[in-house]
Amino acid sequence: MPIRNIAVGHPREATQPDALKAALAEFISTLIFVFAGEGSGMAFNKLTKDGATTPAGLVAASLAHAFALFVAVSVGANISGGHVNPAVTFGAFVGGNITLLRGLLYWVAQLLGSVVACLLLKFATGGLTTSAFALSSGVGVWNAFVLEIVMTFGLVYTVYATAVDPKKGNLGTIAPIAIGFIVGANILVGGAFDGASMNPAVSFGPAVVSWSWDNHWVYWAGPLVGGGLAGLIYEFIFISHSHEQLPTTEY
Amino acid sequence: MPIRNIAVGHPREATQPDALKAALAEFISTLIFVFAGEGSGMAFNKLTKDGATTPAGLVAASLAHAFALFVAVSVGANISGGHVNPAVTFGAFVGGNITLLRGLLYWVAQLLGSVVACLLLKFATGGLTTSAFALSSGVGVWNAFVLEIVMTFGLVYTVYATAVDPKKGNLGTIAPIAIGFIVGANILVGGAFDGASMNPAVSFGPAVVSWSWDNHWVYWAGPLVGGGLAGLIYEFIFISHSHEQLPTTEY
Amino acid sequence: MPIRNIAVGHPREATQPDALKAALAEFISTLIFVFAGEGSGMAFNKLTKDGATTPAGLVAASLAHAFALFVAVSVGANISGGHVNPAVTFGAFVGGNITLLRGLLYWVAQLLGSVVACLLLKFATGGLTTSAFALSSGVGVWNAFVLEIVMTFGLVYTVYATAVDPKKGNLGTIAPIAIGFIVGANILVGGAFDGASMNPAVSFGPAVVSWSWDNHWVYWAGPLVGGGLAGLIYEFIFISHSHEQLPTTEY
Amino acid sequence: MPIRNIAVGHPREATQPDALKAALAEFISTLIFVFAGEGSGMAFNKLTKDGATTPAGLVAASLAHAFALFVAVSVGANISGGHVNPAVTFGAFVGGNITLLRGLLYWVAQLLGSVVACLLLKFATGGLTTSAFALSSGVGVWNAFVLEIVMTFGLVYTVYATAVDPKKGNLGTIAPIAIGFIVGANILVGGAFDGASMNPAVSFGPAVVSWSWDNHWVYWAGPLVGGGLAGLIYEFIFISHSHEQLPTTEY
Repeated sequence: MPIRNIAVGHPREATQPDALKAALAEFISTLIFVFAGEGSGMAFNKLTKDGATTPAGLVAASLAHAFALFVAVSVGANISGGHVNPAVTFGAFVGGNITLLRGLLYWVAQLLGSVVACLLLKFATGGLTTSAFALSSGVGVWNAFVLEIVMTFGLVYTVYATAVDPKKGNLGTIAPIAIGFIVGANILVGGAFDGASMNPAVSFGPAVVSWSWDNHWVYWAGPLVGGGLAGLIYEFIFISHSHEQLPTTEY
Repeated sequence: MPIRNIAVGHPREATQPDALKAALAEFISTLIFVFAGEGSGMAFNKLTKDGATTPAGLVAASLAHAFALFVAVSVGANISGGHVNPAVTFGAFVGGNITLLRGLLYWVAQLLGSVVACLLLKFATGGLTTSAFALSSGVGVWNAFVLEIVMTFGLVYTVYATAVDPKKGNLGTIAPIAIGFIVGANILVGGAFDGASMNPAVSFGPAVVSWSWDNHWVYWAGPLVGGGLAGLIYEFIFISHSHEQLPTTEY
Repeated sequence: MPIRNIAVGHPREATQPDALKAALAEFISTLIFVFAGEGSGMAFNKLTKDGATTPAGLVAASLAHAFALFVAVSVGANISGGHVNPAVTFGAFVGGNITLLRGLLYWVAQLLGSVVACLLLKFATGGLTTSAFALSSGVGVWNAFVLEIVMTFGLVYTVYATAVDPKKGNLGTIAPIAIGFIVGANILVGGAFDGASMNPAVSFGPAVVSWSWDNHWVYWAGPLVGGGLAGLIYEFIFISHSHEQLPTTEY
Repeated sequence: MPIRNIAVGHPREATQPDALKAALAEFISTLIFVFAGEGSGMAFNKLTKDGATTPAGLVAASLAHAFALFVAVSVGANISGGHVNPAVTFGAFVGGNITLLRGLLYWVAQLLGSVVACLLLKFATGGLTTSAFALSSGVGVWNAFVLEIVMTFGLVYTVYATAVDPKKGNLGTIAPIAIGFIVGANILVGGAFDGASMNPAVSFGPAVVSWSWDNHWVYWAGPLVGGGLAGLIYEFIFISHSHEQLPTTEY
């Protein structure tokens, strides 16, 4: 998925047509993903008149994110690698699979895609609030920090095992489904406690558009720590021995 | 998926056995899709005695459309390309991937398939109403227009990235799943606001059989604009540079 | 999926080790499928104290059948073709893709698998009823007949397009998912009206174990007519021209 | 999936780097799976204030387990074979597909992964209970024993047919999905009666962390008997004749 073995960047890279196309692909993929994910929460609020989350609401959120992330990763896969998530890009960076400059370009595209998705949602729903992520009662910020670490570890570990690992074989074909579905599974856990972001872009867009920043840092710190850990562990324990093999980046 | 590089049609084409078989395949695929999609809404109305939409009802609608569209695209893929949607056919046309005549033939087949599905549903359910798509309270027609544009953009962009793009590689194998699931994801958003059509055929059949045409134009204009935009952007930004490669249309 | 080009049977065939293994595979696949499908309905009755079907209950039934049929088809695919359904076997027979004797052997195995699944369910649940399929109020037997025809047509058409058609290509890889999910989609429609069988074995086991046979014929006649039609149409319209190609039966 | 044709182990094997990496992979996969599976039950308890299980709750549990097991099997597949379950490891052992020593190493890793997942869940949720598996009213321990046998038989039979069988062909690509989804299907049955474990590690972690051991043995005995039976039947009836073929263990 990420471009392997490119460990250093240089300014020219980020201005090449391919890098710009990749950034555009990240922008569109993140827009598609956040539109469905955040939008499904707004639909729940519409249908229940802002009622409390129910198990059926959690199922709806899980499916919206799982289905849309699977698609967002798929449609970006052959252009940008289909990161759709600053934590995935960071995990790719710490494992040496993307350059710093290209990574920063991806971050900007992902954050912009999320903001534009939320603006479109606000208009398309006739002005409803794009609710920001928040902690449930009884859940402290350090609880949420650990929750985001564990969940994002699982997500980025999945990206590495199914899409980055040169030994992935046939798994590459179903990698986008696996990447989408681990997020769907984790939302059925974390959705009840801290909203289950696993993705700073996903929490950034709603925060900007609704301008609410309470505990926002935890939705960056948790995913980056979890994603970074997964990248380091997978790259240096499970991939290192096979570096002599030819890398393959296609799904 | 669509037949690439056939940019002009001629009358003979639409009468060739292959074109007729393709039209029959579009008719059957659309019938299967609309039967499950519209039928799941009628089942909800039956079970809740025409109650208001709930999150569980939205999940049911999402799964019915996601599963059935995945299948409808799959079963048509090798015969007609599995469009199952006038907006997909239009998006293929603006990108130069289907001729005008063949496209019109597909439209007729898709619209007929939807009408026949609704007639069969009316009989099989003992005469229940095939409810037409409608705007929720608080949702204006221009809100719905933008909503349909964004959602259909995502759908047709997915068709291009996973099924049309010559660089798609292994993604072709899971393309029909991605195409079905982006619709499932978007229904979890748009289902609460305008019914989430993304497909003029899907809204046409119920409108004919229940003869209700309020705001019907928005379910044509939105999907055609969104699908056309996706076709133009994907074809001319992401595919153009690889036109020298041999196209592959199989999943 | 079925063994193509074997249009006549002879007594020896059904006693060969391979035919018996295929029958055993059909028995086990049908047992796994009915255990999950019928069992999910019993779980709903347990949790709701035999309450009326709700949209959430329909979603549970849909997922149980979709997931379990996908698996049942997969695990049988390379041994028996993974029919798991007398209507699929009949559809294969009318298209000339299985012999009469082997087909009858499959039917016996499928019906036995369903009965054993229901007996196991009765014991494992502490003696709960294995409810037979029944018509909802307002749904006549001819409505249900048409409903079963349309839904089973979609199922067997899917089997042909994704698993039997020599042109299926990469679709073969995801064929079992498509076959499972079209049943999941149709249950979200038909589940509210006649239980949505699409499979005589699925309705036979519960009828035997609960000994209730009201309108039982419709759960045979509908699926056999729908499955037979699909087999004829697909075989003679969409496959006939490619008979000169080498058939491939693997997924 | 398991390493075929290695029928005897020796002490050195379990200390080799590859065996330790495989154990680490089993530990991480089981952690990811139990975190989502057990965590989804805790989310339900949070949202409903420890209410009784509902059909929507069963759907949430089913999806969390199906999605997460699919992913856990995928991410471990090329390192450890992706067992994620002592009953799968046992089924592989009785069919001669893993050595005793390596099997024991897997068991330890799986049980540890489950315990660590439950400890992380306890912290991340602000101290909620990690509920142990229990029998519903009206369900005796022998009913649950049979229930676990049948469900785990289906699971391990699926592992053999889609991942171990040398004849599996294209099924290998979707094997992890099938393995995850049979568990999702069975939870929609067994979840209402005994919690539907099918996996001793899944029940062990919550039992340790909540220190509740009522009827715990049935969650070991049922899965091991069912998994062992599936391994014996599949290996000696369906695989034996093809032993001369080269085994393939990749997905």
